[in-house]
Amino acid sequence: MALSTRHLLGIKDLNLSDIEKIFETADNFKTVLNRPIKKVPSLRDVTIANIFFENSTRTRLSFELAEKRLSADVVNFSASSSSVSKGETLVDTVNNILAMKVDMVVMRHPYAGAGVFLAKHVKAQIVNAGDGAHEHPTQALLDAFSIRERYGEVAGKKVVIVGDILHSRVALSNILCLKQLGAEVMVCGPTTLIPKYIRSLGVLVEHNLIKALNWCDVANMLRIQLERQDIRYFPSQREYTMLYGLNKQILDSLDKEITIMHPGPINRGVEITSDVADSKQSIILDQVENGVAIRMAVLYLLAGQGS
Amino acid sequence: MALSTRHLLGIKDLNLSDIEKIFETADNFKTVLNRPIKKVPSLRDVTIANIFFENSTRTRLSFELAEKRLSADVVNFSASSSSVSKGETLVDTVNNILAMKVDMVVMRHPYAGAGVFLAKHVKAQIVNAGDGAHEHPTQALLDAFSIRERYGEVAGKKVVIVGDILHSRVALSNILCLKQLGAEVMVCGPTTLIPKYIRSLGVLVEHNLIKALNWCDVANMLRIQLERQDIRYFPSQREYTMLYGLNKQILDSLDKEITIMHPGPINRGVEITSDVADSKQSIILDQVENGVAIRMAVLYLLAGQGS
Amino acid sequence: MALSTRHLLGIKDLNLSDIEKIFETADNFKTVLNRPIKKVPSLRDVTIANIFFENSTRTRLSFELAEKRLSADVVNFSASSSSVSKGETLVDTVNNILAMKVDMVVMRHPYAGAGVFLAKHVKAQIVNAGDGAHEHPTQALLDAFSIRERYGEVAGKKVVIVGDILHSRVALSNILCLKQLGAEVMVCGPTTLIPKYIRSLGVLVEHNLIKALNWCDVANMLRIQLERQDIRYFPSQREYTMLYGLNKQILDSLDKEITIMHPGPINRGVEITSDVADSKQSIILDQVENGVAIRMAVLYLLAGQGS
Repeated sequence: MALSTRHLLGIKDLNLSDIEKIFETADNFKTVLNRPIKKVPSLRDVTIANIFFENSTRTRLSFELAEKRLSADVVNFSASSSSVSKGETLVDTVNNILAMKVDMVVMRHPYAGAGVFLAKHVKAQIVNAGDGAHEHPTQALLDAFSIRERYGEVAGKKVVIVGDILHSRVALSNILCLKQLGAEVMVCGPTTLIPKYIRSLGVLVEHNLIKALNWCDVANMLRIQLERQDIRYFPSQREYTMLYGLNKQILDSLDKEITIMHPGPINRGVEITSDVADSKQSIILDQVENGVAIRMAVLYLLAGQGS
Repeated sequence: MALSTRHLLGIKDLNLSDIEKIFETADNFKTVLNRPIKKVPSLRDVTIANIFFENSTRTRLSFELAEKRLSADVVNFSASSSSVSKGETLVDTVNNILAMKVDMVVMRHPYAGAGVFLAKHVKAQIVNAGDGAHEHPTQALLDAFSIRERYGEVAGKKVVIVGDILHSRVALSNILCLKQLGAEVMVCGPTTLIPKYIRSLGVLVEHNLIKALNWCDVANMLRIQLERQDIRYFPSQREYTMLYGLNKQILDSLDKEITIMHPGPINRGVEITSDVADSKQSIILDQVENGVAIRMAVLYLLAGQGS
Repeated sequence: MALSTRHLLGIKDLNLSDIEKIFETADNFKTVLNRPIKKVPSLRDVTIANIFFENSTRTRLSFELAEKRLSADVVNFSASSSSVSKGETLVDTVNNILAMKVDMVVMRHPYAGAGVFLAKHVKAQIVNAGDGAHEHPTQALLDAFSIRERYGEVAGKKVVIVGDILHSRVALSNILCLKQLGAEVMVCGPTTLIPKYIRSLGVLVEHNLIKALNWCDVANMLRIQLERQDIRYFPSQREYTMLYGLNKQILDSLDKEITIMHPGPINRGVEITSDVADSKQSIILDQVENGVAIRMAVLYLLAGQGS
């Protein structure tokens, strides 16, 4: 079994058959993760470097656990983008790490396109763990995998992504992944946070949260990342919560029982209230659990075609 | 062999039989640590997350070595309490880590009661590696284990704890552990650093260092943690050293040869002088060595009743 | 096979036979590193602590990979020198780590002589990973090993070290290593950055870059470390680049094809231009690759005589 790509830079790299292979492999690994013995020897003798130019405890930990459960050798490298700009270029940094015979690089970088650039200039296999506001492919895969787990399939499901679509790599990767799997996708948020080109991706746009929720089967409530906002255009946090925050009252007022997702970390009381986050309709912790299985699947499938 | 508790949140969780089981298990692991092959496969396939919301190189390293020698898979997570207060709650942070199928959490947290709170709200087994000024149970266990190693038993021994009793989690856990094992315990320090409730724990209080030292078999000289002091009430560091600092001259003036302990890191010349720290009466490095064996024992015994 | 020393504090510790043993062992490990299975069980049950009091991603990573490929158990300890000066002495810090039954310490420290001091006061085997402006022995070994790989032998080769000789531990260790192996060594740089005592080590001094390059077989272009400079005496970075920067035009103007080395990280456009760094004459990435093999050899040979 092989993917059609040597790298995972974005959902753009994957065709439908690739995504299905990843899901089937993740199904198997998920079984493994629920056994008492959670480790498999699949990547014994593969060395993976996690290079994080931007802080991300949660994603780094998920990749690290995936790697260790595949029995890979793991080295971690954390660098603020400033320390790298001290003089060494990104290509030099990574080439140096590769000269130490590292087989695969998992990279988080604050700039969009950093993974694509790197894959052109170095020999290693690159897995993009988030590049600026561009793509975050493993997040989109684990989100779609969680919907498939809930409903049996993704095709035909109606998914609304609520929040700051403009600055979100999670939104873009989710749209590309869900569309390819045959879901109907809507985005919902204030006009200032929805980019004009978004309709060209074949998604619906809705500014009213209640209408969006009444339309959907699944609502993916994005995290408000205050550090990424252009403060002049953004509704204040209070305004955002009033207009786009999801609470139990709203949830109970809908005609049907929708599924609630969130990529984490949650700002409780901002995007969603605690009773929503902890309700039976929420699959937020399933997303986290599935993250490890999806990342194991991606690393396993890529490693198989590396050499 | 099983403990009467699923978590180790404080010495309060342990009865006498628990402590004895931990000591006997630590005896065995100490033998292992002095073999050329120091590793045992006991916790193969157990994943332990070390979550440190407060910096602690020494305790983190001791736990990490204990875990690796038990062949556990280890992931580290360091977070300043500020980064967590960025939006995510403690329960969310830990639930996320647990959703990644982590079996056990070793946690250091700046707030008293963080471990107790967590154990109520999440499903994992929690080992408290220090919570604010509350408890630091593995430190107390290794201290008592070191006294037992020196004298054959703890019962009947006279132990004085010298220093800032008010702000010390080491003092509180030590008192609880030593009392349960049948030692006589005295605390010694300036009135401003001894809490009023301390007599209710059945300990003696003495403000004169020489009198305290002449009474005891063992003196546990606490580290002065300037960062924890309310500056108005505290004697200055010079005053503290004059009144409560232990030097070789004082040590040699005592009627009997007492044993010197210190939980580290030592401020040489403040709590104790170098000649005291490095004297034959000091078991400070034995404490460090025993720390790894005690932590192996705690993790091993808890893991046995986790599933 | 054993070295004549228990520690590797500097090239000064090694005689010619030691260096040859290290090179032969590194030859073997380099073969291993180019196999699909890059791991050997040589240091199973050896615990190594990497203690870095100064930031060094590249050297730390190279040591960590070397240790993991030897199957050692690895713990990392990073401390700014300030955190240590909070109260605990270097000897206390390391003695504590050793009490936890660590077999070997790899240490980077900002002060010259820190490794030598430590080796006198603690029982562990110490490998110096750079101490202030003093020595960086594994860097010198990997540099000489890379020259030997390029030319078959080091004896008789002409090597010029270009840059800030005054503040460079790389320069000093390189001079000692190359001289012992029978190379001719020249240093080249502005008078303000070449210490007066340097001629006593038997090296030539040249202030003109073109003359130096026309003399040599190999040019080792040191990194300009602005953080180590006394700003009053130093030529500005622009002046330095004009006088001592190496570009393709200069390289092509020489009579013979010299070999270009750089210890990294490169300031592209300062010490050397990109076309030089990436040219066929550059062995910069071979140096990085050889670094892991050399460090495996050093750790392996030292461990063999530790107990």
